[in-house]
Order: sequence, then structure tokens, then C-alpha cells
Amino acid sequence: PFKVYQIGRVWRGERQQAGRYREFLQCDVDIIGSSRIEADAEIVAVLYETVKALGVTDFVIKVNNRKIMNGLMTYIGLDTARAPAVFRAIDKLDKQTWDTVADELQETGLNSEQVSQLKTFFELRDAKKEKLLDGMQDTLRDSSEAREGVEELRKLALSLQAFGVPDNGWCIDPVVVRGLGYYTGPVFEISLRGSEKIGSVGGGGRYDSLVERFSSAPVPATGASIGFDRLFKSVKSLGLTKLKNKTQVIVLNFDDAARDSCLKVTTELRRAGISTELYLGQEDNLKGQLAYATKRDVPVVVIIGSEEQAKNTAQLKDMKKRKQFEVPVTNVVRKIEELLIC
Amino acid sequence: PFKVYQIGRVWRGERQQAGRYREFLQCDVDIIGSSRIEADAEIVAVLYETVKALGVTDFVIKVNNRKIMNGLMTYIGLDTARAPAVFRAIDKLDKQTWDTVADELQETGLNSEQVSQLKTFFELRDAKKEKLLDGMQDTLRDSSEAREGVEELRKLALSLQAFGVPDNGWCIDPVVVRGLGYYTGPVFEISLRGSEKIGSVGGGGRYDSLVERFSSAPVPATGASIGFDRLFKSVKSLGLTKLKNKTQVIVLNFDDAARDSCLKVTTELRRAGISTELYLGQEDNLKGQLAYATKRDVPVVVIIGSEEQAKNTAQLKDMKKRKQFEVPVTNVVRKIEELLIC
Repeated sequence: PFKVYQIGRVWRGERQQAGRYREFLQCDVDIIGSSRIEADAEIVAVLYETVKALGVTDFVIKVNNRKIMNGLMTYIGLDTARAPAVFRAIDKLDKQTWDTVADELQETGLNSEQVSQLKTFFELRDAKKEKLLDGMQDTLRDSSEAREGVEELRKLALSLQAFGVPDNGWCIDPVVVRGLGYYTGPVFEISLRGSEKIGSVGGGGRYDSLVERFSSAPVPATGASIGFDRLFKSVKSLGLTKLKNKTQVIVLNFDDAARDSCLKVTTELRRAGISTELYLGQEDNLKGQLAYATKRDVPVVVIIGSEEQAKNTAQLKDMKKRKQFEVPVTNVVRKIEELLIC
Repeated sequence: PFKVYQIGRVWRGERQQAGRYREFLQCDVDIIGSSRIEADAEIVAVLYETVKALGVTDFVIKVNNRKIMNGLMTYIGLDTARAPAVFRAIDKLDKQTWDTVADELQETGLNSEQVSQLKTFFELRDAKKEKLLDGMQDTLRDSSEAREGVEELRKLALSLQAFGVPDNGWCIDPVVVRGLGYYTGPVFEISLRGSEKIGSVGGGGRYDSLVERFSSAPVPATGASIGFDRLFKSVKSLGLTKLKNKTQVIVLNFDDAARDSCLKVTTELRRAGISTELYLGQEDNLKGQLAYATKRDVPVVVIIGSEEQAKNTAQLKDMKKRKQFEVPVTNVVRKIEELLIC
């Protein structure tokens, strides 16, 4: 199989909404050419490990299977063409009461018995995995497609456990259908607690007949996408973002006669791995440049003017402790390393 | 000043040529809001450090100044509007003889005296930096703009030295003008020896009046771009690319009854930082999966079937030494780490 991950800008031609941008950064992971359920499990495991690696603790990956949903439509005697409208109504169960959803279902043309059948089915939702699977299997026992879907979820559960995804890291949720029509088997959706307003930060599923549309041969495939912008927004709102690579040192640059030393020190600091800015702004005097450094909130400022240049020294200003040290130019790196640790 | 670097896809509406793609990956670095020559030097230093970090040894950053080129046009009494055609001809001096270029210059309408003046000027090209600067200054002494350009190059030289760019890492080359019309001061171009056919892998310059075209205020700016595709092609042709993150282990997956152990071992190996692939292909027997692993050229293969599962062991196949070990499942990671080191 061909395994691939990619992160890149993508564009959307549909209507924009809150959290639905015209241009956004998408992180994809896909396995092309494998029909094994372990491939689906591996995608879910990647989603799990990715969100966990960001430090998010309160999230769950919701899993469902399109085959079960197709069986459900057959069970209530609904034509496949009318399923999308029903799925759209069902999708609102997370935000609205059953009664509101029931009204919408009736507007799509379902009769009260069909609505009642769906109600009973979706009440299974609150059960634990094993009981939920048994319940779905029992309700949809006449559909071989649904039975196949349930069987896939059982295998998926075993694979996820073996891949080390904990039991509370994922759940089965029959409400999850995913908007796109091309899914054919397991579908997944990342649900971050406290970010419901932003919308799902990612999801995917098996799409065994999509490749065929663009080529001559059928190729099984499974994969998922994470919406980087949404995920970043969520992670940020959870306070989990840290600003890295912040400038640690600003080397002032106010005296043409000392420019040489300033540039040399800048390069030495950078080579020592210290994030260093050489002052390149419009201020041409010490006072103005110091004000800039204060505003930029850096821990250390290096000052070298003609006087220091003549003595081959540099003034180091510890901006937090408001202390100033004069050191030989050759000691600047070591001394700044000390100041940054303290 | 605003400092920014970015790497992203860009598109070109112009004609395609060898090495000139419609879509390509561009790496930019820019300093917006500083008119200081140290900013230009910092851009050149970034280009130098970047190419050097890739392991390329035989390269030089060619530097020139648009102000000198403008002064040169005044010196030969040429209207500014006709300069682009002259620059295009001059640009070919790297690949063609002076006589061929001279013919093209005459076709643009230059008289023989003007061509002769240019010849004398570009003969300066072979001189060392200091002498070349003196020569340009002397020839173009009547142009205050050219004098300013020479002065900028002198300052740039001092800054580059202070930034730690060695003398053989850059040169002054009056032939470099850069295609784009918006440059106003120093211009740079990366020249990789042995990659002349691919074309310049990057370059840039000061563009003090470009921002103004898109906003109300004039903002000084300098920067450069590296064409990732071209640079990668060059680095590859120099044999400097290494394939990283190559799969180290394939865990076979041919026995449903042992799937659980296979997935667990896969996760353990991955958590230990070992790049591990779980077999997800169409082959369902040991022999077929082993043939796949041989083709993929991985150092170690893990084999767990029902027999091993019953004993809680795994077979590890060292594919280079053609040796096989049976170890307890709990020892798989440690033993593979050993095998990979040897």
C-alpha cells in the first residue's frame, strides 16, 4: 500500500461559515491500496496520537460505519436518494433535542413510524461499546450490509486496543456520518471537548470507490484530515500553545564605528544557538534602541559603542534584574548563556 | 523592522523553460522596514548559511548593485527605457563570448563606442573585490548614483566579513542584474558550481519602492528567495541527499489469530522511535509477505503467527545476515535495537 501524509493549503468553493474558511491548512494522512481493517485502525491511531501529542487531554475520536447507516435506511424503508437529508437532520442531535430533530425528520417526508424507529435506534447511542454494537446488530439483523459494518467495528475495536488507543480515547457514535458522500466503511471524527463551537477539528473514513472515479481500476483507501486552523484555534483556546524561538538577545547598533563588533557578536551568539536580533530599525541612538528592546521584552541586550570597541568589551544588560555587566567580547556568549539560565 | 521567512508553493504566469516551472516551492526571507546595509548583509549571510548547511561546498553568492548599473547606463548615454534589453544581453556573458554579446548589444541600437565602453567596464569583472570597486568608482565617477552604489558595496563587504561570511563565499559580479525591474540597491544571486544548467538556485536584492506600489507609504525592504525545486535538484545531483526515516522494521500480518500481538509490537516499536511498518497489503500468507519485505529492503522483519502467539514469542529476521531469532515478545524492542546498531 501507498502511505502518505501531507500538510498544505487547500481551497473550498462552498459557502463560508464560522470555522469554515475559503482557504485553510489541511493535514492529511492516507493509506491507499489496503482493504484491511487494521489500515482504518492505524488512521484512527494516528489521529489519536497526533491530538494527544499536542497536549490535549479532553477529546475523543467518534467512530461509525457507513454500512450500518445504509442498513438503517433500508430498515426504515427509505430510498437511498433521500438519505442525505435524513443524515443532515440526525447530525444535529449533538446540539438539539430529539423533538426538534424529529420535526425536521418529518419535514423530509418520514412518517411517524419511521421517526419512531430512528428514535429507538439512536437511543442506543448512550450504551457502552459492546452493548451498542449488539443493539445495532440486533435492530438491523436483516441487513447483511449493516451486519458487515458492525463486524468491521468489532474488528476495529480489537485493532485499536492492540495499537494502544485507550478505551476512553474513542467511542462508537451512530450520529457520525461525515458530510461527504464518498465514504464506504468506517468513518471517524475528532471531538474536542470545549471546542464544539469551532466544529469538528478533523475526521475521515474509508473511501473504497473514490479512486475509481478518477482512474480505471478500483483501489481501496482510507484516511483522515485535520483542519490545522481549527485545531490550532482549539489548542490555543485551551492555553496549550507556547511561543517558541522567542528572541533572547538584541544587539544594539547605534555607533557606526562599532558596527563590526556588533555583527561579529551577533553571529557568535547565533552559532551558539541563541536567538539573536541585530537592531536594524530607524533609531540611531542608544536611548531609542534601548526603548525598542524594552518594548520587545527580551531578557538580554548587548551594547557595544566606540568606547567598548576600543576596550574590546561589551555591555550586557540583564533586562529583568536591571543589572549591567561589562565583559570582554570573547566572554559574551558564555556570560549570556549564564544570564539566560538564571 | 518586520522579519519574515516562509516556504510555500508559488505560481508563475510566464513562459515555462527548463528549470522554470509553472508551480514551484519557494523559500523566502525578507526584512521589511530597514534601509540599513546590514539588513542586506544579513540576507546574504542567510543565503550563505542555508546553502552551506546543506553540505554544498562549491558555491558563491554573486553581488552587484542596481545603482551602479543605472550609473553605467548614464555613462554610456543610454535612455533608461532601453536598459532592460542591454541588461538581458549582458546577462549572457556567463555563457557566451564577448563578440556574441557585442553583436546583440549592437542589435539593441548601441553604437560601437558604447559597446566598447561596456567592454572595458565588464573587463573589470575579473579583478579582485577591492580593485573592482575602485575601477567601477573611477569609471563612473561622474554619476552620484553609481558612487553611492559602490559605497554600499564597500559597506556590505565589511558587514559580510563581520557576519562571518568568508571572502571566497561571495564575490562582486557586475554582470548580475536580476530579471525583475523592482530592485533599487544591492542584488544577490546564488551560483552553484556544476549546476549552471539548472540555472540560478536563488537570489534577491533591495526593493525600496515595491511596497509603495501596493500601499500609501514608502517602506524600505530587502530580501531573497531560494527556488526549492532547483536547489533540491542541484543538491541531489551533487549526491548530497540522504533518505531519512527509512522504514527499519516491517511487522508481517498473515495470521488473523495473531493480529493482536502484531499490532502491539508495532506500537511498541514506534514508541521506541523505530520506524515500523505493519504489513497492510493484499498478500495473506507468510511467503508473499516476506517477498514484499525483501523487495522493500528493510533490515529487520518481525514474524508472529499462531505458534509464536501461543508461546508469547516473535521471530526476528535479520535480513542482511540472513539469521533468525526467536525472542519473548517483551524483548522484541531491545533485540531489534541491537540488530539495528550492528
